[in-house]
Amino acid sequence: MEKLCFGVDVGGTTIKMGLFTSTGELKEKWEIVTRKEDNGSHILDDIADSILSKIQQNGIDKSNITGVGIGVPGPVKEDGTVLNCVNLGWGIINVADILREKTGFEVKAGNDANVAALGEMWQGGGKGYKNLVMITLGTGVGGGIILNEQILSGTNGAAGEIGHMPVVYEDTDVCGCGKKGCLEQVASATGIVKVTKKILETSTKDSTLRKAENLTAKYIFDEAKKGDELATLAVDNLTNYLAIATAHIACVVDPEVFVIGGGVSKAGTILTDNIKEKYTKKAFPACKNAGFELAKLGNDAGIYGAAKLVL
Amino acid sequence: MEKLCFGVDVGGTTIKMGLFTSTGELKEKWEIVTRKEDNGSHILDDIADSILSKIQQNGIDKSNITGVGIGVPGPVKEDGTVLNCVNLGWGIINVADILREKTGFEVKAGNDANVAALGEMWQGGGKGYKNLVMITLGTGVGGGIILNEQILSGTNGAAGEIGHMPVVYEDTDVCGCGKKGCLEQVASATGIVKVTKKILETSTKDSTLRKAENLTAKYIFDEAKKGDELATLAVDNLTNYLAIATAHIACVVDPEVFVIGGGVSKAGTILTDNIKEKYTKKAFPACKNAGFELAKLGNDAGIYGAAKLVL
Repeated sequence: MEKLCFGVDVGGTTIKMGLFTSTGELKEKWEIVTRKEDNGSHILDDIADSILSKIQQNGIDKSNITGVGIGVPGPVKEDGTVLNCVNLGWGIINVADILREKTGFEVKAGNDANVAALGEMWQGGGKGYKNLVMITLGTGVGGGIILNEQILSGTNGAAGEIGHMPVVYEDTDVCGCGKKGCLEQVASATGIVKVTKKILETSTKDSTLRKAENLTAKYIFDEAKKGDELATLAVDNLTNYLAIATAHIACVVDPEVFVIGGGVSKAGTILTDNIKEKYTKKAFPACKNAGFELAKLGNDAGIYGAAKLVL
Repeated sequence: MEKLCFGVDVGGTTIKMGLFTSTGELKEKWEIVTRKEDNGSHILDDIADSILSKIQQNGIDKSNITGVGIGVPGPVKEDGTVLNCVNLGWGIINVADILREKTGFEVKAGNDANVAALGEMWQGGGKGYKNLVMITLGTGVGGGIILNEQILSGTNGAAGEIGHMPVVYEDTDVCGCGKKGCLEQVASATGIVKVTKKILETSTKDSTLRKAENLTAKYIFDEAKKGDELATLAVDNLTNYLAIATAHIACVVDPEVFVIGGGVSKAGTILTDNIKEKYTKKAFPACKNAGFELAKLGNDAGIYGAAKLVL
């Protein structure tokens, strides 16, 4: 029988789980609720129970399970120790050891953003590449660095914290991290809206954006595609900062490709084309042919990458 | 008899060579001239001859030689292929293969800036660390990234090209790489002088710097140490950009330590203390305790790192 493995992506509300073949086929996926009460002490029990039930339901021979990979929302050391998961109520615990104990399977753990990057490398927008940088433009801006098919965690588990690169030199609102001027302040879904509102306030030009009751990143991109001047200005501002950030990243790790994901990336190639055009002018010449791809796995990137951890 | 190896650092004028023990003791060092005529086709012959003569002179048993490491001024792929060494007249050649053929020893090749970073990790300012970023502030600004004791080369051999991070948003002169706004434009020895001259031109304040016949980075730092206001402003400007660059780098690879080398680093702890102070405010909080150390090996970093390549 073919070898199988589990990929688990622990979020603040739900835990996504997937059963994969070792060649990357998602056989089945499901979710369970994240029980955060009692300092999140039920979470790993719930995951173990769900995995063991799934094995029983499907009549899988345990010897065919390669292992369980798990992505968690916080910094993770190479040995599987989670340093801090404020969202889940966890202190410093070794997630890999605990889940190995509870399931009897080999377990590997990683930070969720890094794991999503690994998933996109395996079966998504970065398929076929070994060195990639993923940038996730969502409520915040996350990132993950994959070098030679391996996640780069960094000394403090903070490698790939792209959202906190200090790209904005003018004063901005304080970021969630406590600093000012982070990429996240201008390139997250909320950041784009905030910057666009400022553009609308300081310009007297007409714009279809002024008619929006609830300005969203999607609406701004849609209007830019139709040629609205101020929406285009907003997209230019966003993609300029992303080009600066990716040009910096290229000088540091020189990846083959940048994969752009998260809700904002639903805008499509207007986003990647715009970043690429500006990046080409800002990047060190040897790196200017780096690719810019859209992520493909959406919310499943985490379970794919988690599964890949144990393969 | 203890194992020995050679470290070779190929520069545009001279080739530095060192004979090392495998524990990192430099037994002997010497230089030969870099013969650039005939498209640099004599260089590897000269190196091989020099190594073989040294072995004969010292009566070393060839079986005690672990190998030869070589750093060259251009991008190098993992297999030892040099993509471009304009300075030396080389096209695309596999330096490691050729030198292995000529000497009979195991040969590993790396980019000179990366190799210097490895040297500083082994026996210099980064000793005891496994993950470090070296920044060399000289005529240009170079860099090298060491992750888990290994050089990070990057897809195009451009990882660690710190000098070309686009940190300056105002217009600057065109950099050697063809772009504008590179870190090198403000943080190299010549960049510092250029920026300081602008500060002197635009200010009416008195400054001991105005008395200098030949303004140098060293003089600017010396006067800043004595409290000269405009020299302090110049040092602030430089260290601000270096803090921005290192904060970016920390968000990407999250190193344990930054090692600052090159001629400008002779200014001493005024440089590292100033960068560190500003970095702490700009860096992602998890990374703010990264160390800032001065390089210790000077011009020998290249031969140390080259030797380490084969150990």
